[in-house]
Amino acid sequence: LSELSHRSIGIFDSGIGGLTVFREISKILPREDLVYLGDTARVPYGTKSAATVTRYAIQNVRFLLKEDVKLIVVACNTASAFAVEALQKEFSIPILGVIEPGVAGALRIGGAASPDTPKPPSGSFELAKPDSHSRQLKICVIGTEGTIASEAYTKALHRRDPSVRVSGVACPLFVPLVEEGWWENEITQQIARHYLNETLDRGLDAMILGCTHYPLLKSTLRKVVGERVALVDSAEETARETALLLDKRGLLRESSARPTHRFFVTDSPERFQRVGSMLLGETLLNVRHVEI
Amino acid sequence: LSELSHRSIGIFDSGIGGLTVFREISKILPREDLVYLGDTARVPYGTKSAATVTRYAIQNVRFLLKEDVKLIVVACNTASAFAVEALQKEFSIPILGVIEPGVAGALRIGGAASPDTPKPPSGSFELAKPDSHSRQLKICVIGTEGTIASEAYTKALHRRDPSVRVSGVACPLFVPLVEEGWWENEITQQIARHYLNETLDRGLDAMILGCTHYPLLKSTLRKVVGERVALVDSAEETARETALLLDKRGLLRESSARPTHRFFVTDSPERFQRVGSMLLGETLLNVRHVEI
Repeated sequence: LSELSHRSIGIFDSGIGGLTVFREISKILPREDLVYLGDTARVPYGTKSAATVTRYAIQNVRFLLKEDVKLIVVACNTASAFAVEALQKEFSIPILGVIEPGVAGALRIGGAASPDTPKPPSGSFELAKPDSHSRQLKICVIGTEGTIASEAYTKALHRRDPSVRVSGVACPLFVPLVEEGWWENEITQQIARHYLNETLDRGLDAMILGCTHYPLLKSTLRKVVGERVALVDSAEETARETALLLDKRGLLRESSARPTHRFFVTDSPERFQRVGSMLLGETLLNVRHVEI
Repeated sequence: LSELSHRSIGIFDSGIGGLTVFREISKILPREDLVYLGDTARVPYGTKSAATVTRYAIQNVRFLLKEDVKLIVVACNTASAFAVEALQKEFSIPILGVIEPGVAGALRIGGAASPDTPKPPSGSFELAKPDSHSRQLKICVIGTEGTIASEAYTKALHRRDPSVRVSGVACPLFVPLVEEGWWENEITQQIARHYLNETLDRGLDAMILGCTHYPLLKSTLRKVVGERVALVDSAEETARETALLLDKRGLLRESSARPTHRFFVTDSPERFQRVGSMLLGETLLNVRHVEI
């Protein structure tokens, strides 16, 4: 067991959305102390350039390091897409983005969920289909303009499996819709259809929810994509990956003392508390303003 | 004529939306040199606190002062709501927000446009209605969360006319809808109805478009509010006010040399150029990145 295991897990996001990652981590690692930084004074990152987002991400990590963390999770997809490599070069602490876990999840879940090739009708002379491993998997990534334009998911998927067919759809209205609380609203469903119809028409095995806000739209997206498409929740996958990584490095907290959850925001705490409590379904306490 | 008249007009906004103000100023003052700063690295201001927005606004003014300006227009409604007074205290240069011109416009246009009191049916014993000046004007302000929560428009309206009935509706989805290019889309119309139906049911004389993006939704809003409600465009009103103020102070540029239009953005110019060109309906040239 490492002497660092008593330290907190640091999580940062551009704002409120990363609370979906926070929630999954707190579920799967209920003993861990968590410290969350939401860069609400500069949110969103999704429409901003790689250079700007990387600059902000470095400042966020510097702040979390002062809070004595043992590992940092980049909950924001855009920051993961643009900045994780730069962060890993700059800092020695383990830093985990949401892209790689999401990609691993899509290949696992999407591959498993994809319907078996239907048997040819008896009497047919078709050759037997190749086994399911060589069947071309169709994965769609949805996210912010920045995440999709970066093609970070596409590149990461192709590094693991060059045969996968990947499409990307930017859904810029989803974040404001979630923050408005319109998770299962009729209008939200129409907007989702508008964004996704074309992709769905081409057939799909899995859809990666490539933005921290999107897990809250899961039931609406389920209606739009139908039952046969696997929805891959990066937040869940990242929490699982965080647990595995801590375990492997002997960094899991052993204490049975009640863990602390602390929140820092770069804008005033009011809106974060209000919208964040709605997102988490519980009142957010312990939110402090900080300038970084 | 002041020796400062050769200087530029400075305009700043949280991002792209202020280009609607820029456009109106360039129409009404075609001889003026204009310098526009869009704080795209920190956009939007509409969900951020007064303290944070004021801090950003002060930095924006400092930047524009180095560009040798003679007057500064705060194109952003949220910054106007939160920061104009602080800016006017901090700096000696004339600084104009969009709230006061919008309010003056609403009282002028809304008052003029409000339908005459219908004549009572003959044979009725009702007393004659008081003259139109004492009729209570109903004005609705639409804007970002920050602008509406600040009640800046309500206060400014009541300073001029305490009898006006003012309602405010935050329409957080309008900015992303405009930036998505969905100006006259069926979904946008539904969302507008969702936000505004209740207010419209109570009756309305004028609606102030209290966010720089909203003039682009004018034709959709016209369908939603009907023909009898005056739509007050803060951008137009502010441009008119800018011209009056320059004239009064002898600051109008006299040169017949072709004016220059320069744009600075705090994030990379790419998205600003792309979305901004769509908003203005012409290609934006001369956009430079700057860190402030």
